[in-house]
Amino acid sequence: MKFCNLCGGPVALQIPDDDNRERHVCQNCDAIHYVNPKIIVGCLPTIEDRILLCKRAIEPRYGKWTLPAGFMENGETSADGAARETWEEAAAKAKDLVLYRIFDVPHISQVYLFYRCGIENDAFGVGPESLESGLFSADEIPWHQLAFPVVREILQEYLRDREQGEYPIRNTVIEYPRR
Amino acid sequence: MKFCNLCGGPVALQIPDDDNRERHVCQNCDAIHYVNPKIIVGCLPTIEDRILLCKRAIEPRYGKWTLPAGFMENGETSADGAARETWEEAAAKAKDLVLYRIFDVPHISQVYLFYRCGIENDAFGVGPESLESGLFSADEIPWHQLAFPVVREILQEYLRDREQGEYPIRNTVIEYPRR
Repeated sequence: MKFCNLCGGPVALQIPDDDNRERHVCQNCDAIHYVNPKIIVGCLPTIEDRILLCKRAIEPRYGKWTLPAGFMENGETSADGAARETWEEAAAKAKDLVLYRIFDVPHISQVYLFYRCGIENDAFGVGPESLESGLFSADEIPWHQLAFPVVREILQEYLRDREQGEYPIRNTVIEYPRR
Repeated sequence: MKFCNLCGGPVALQIPDDDNRERHVCQNCDAIHYVNPKIIVGCLPTIEDRILLCKRAIEPRYGKWTLPAGFMENGETSADGAARETWEEAAAKAKDLVLYRIFDVPHISQVYLFYRCGIENDAFGVGPESLESGLFSADEIPWHQLAFPVVREILQEYLRDREQGEYPIRNTVIEYPRR
């Protein structure tokens, strides 16, 4: 960030009065520009014992498999956002959404909210951000072709929970390996 | 938003290619400036059967009572942020944090994550954003002097859960009354 998006003046990193962190502060109009974590909302859609996954048509992780998920938008609820992403990526209408999994990923300043859901009329397709989509039973999941650590984590946990027949809401922190 | 914070050029609301929403797009460098919901993290700290509340020394809702909570910062986990806010607002070190309550507040594009917690050494004070702080038993809570709808909601629910002796994680949508 180099310029103030309100007045166009130059910004500098400073600790404002009554604060204890550096912020981007406009040197012209004194506006403080905060940068905060982003929320990723997504679904774990199932039809009977199979899970709907999408193959990414965009970077990062082009060609890898993922659950439908993406940045939450202003003005929507997290469930609405998760359903929207499921429609955009898998052309599937999510139904019966139940919150399932919260991940903190502080390394990239993201919080994930995942919902379990069904799919209306068991109908799905391929959205513009996907190369293909498909249903996977437990022994068909492409474990070595998954796009993100959170996807592996939630799928492993879902399969364990399914054996128990209970799906408690859980939250954990994902620490990315240092490179 | 009027100016690009990367190049200082003018921005205009446009629907970018491969998108379906208006975004602030720089007319000079084509950067797209997304605006996303913010996360509020907070604690519901208790000592035995009493709840720690803080009286706000800042707007909005100056002089009203609230639970320690505030905007999550980049690079921290939601639990770390909730503990940080408890320190900043009530000079209390939160311990044994357990996720308790998720609120969607789409009207103001916020998601709240509240943790139940204890307080180290039962020690608390008054942070710079508070006028005072104190412990309240169920029949002492200042219901008509609470700062925000989510505070009323979580306190009511906590007291009900306490009677049952179970504290399941729940998520709901808070619809603000239209003005």
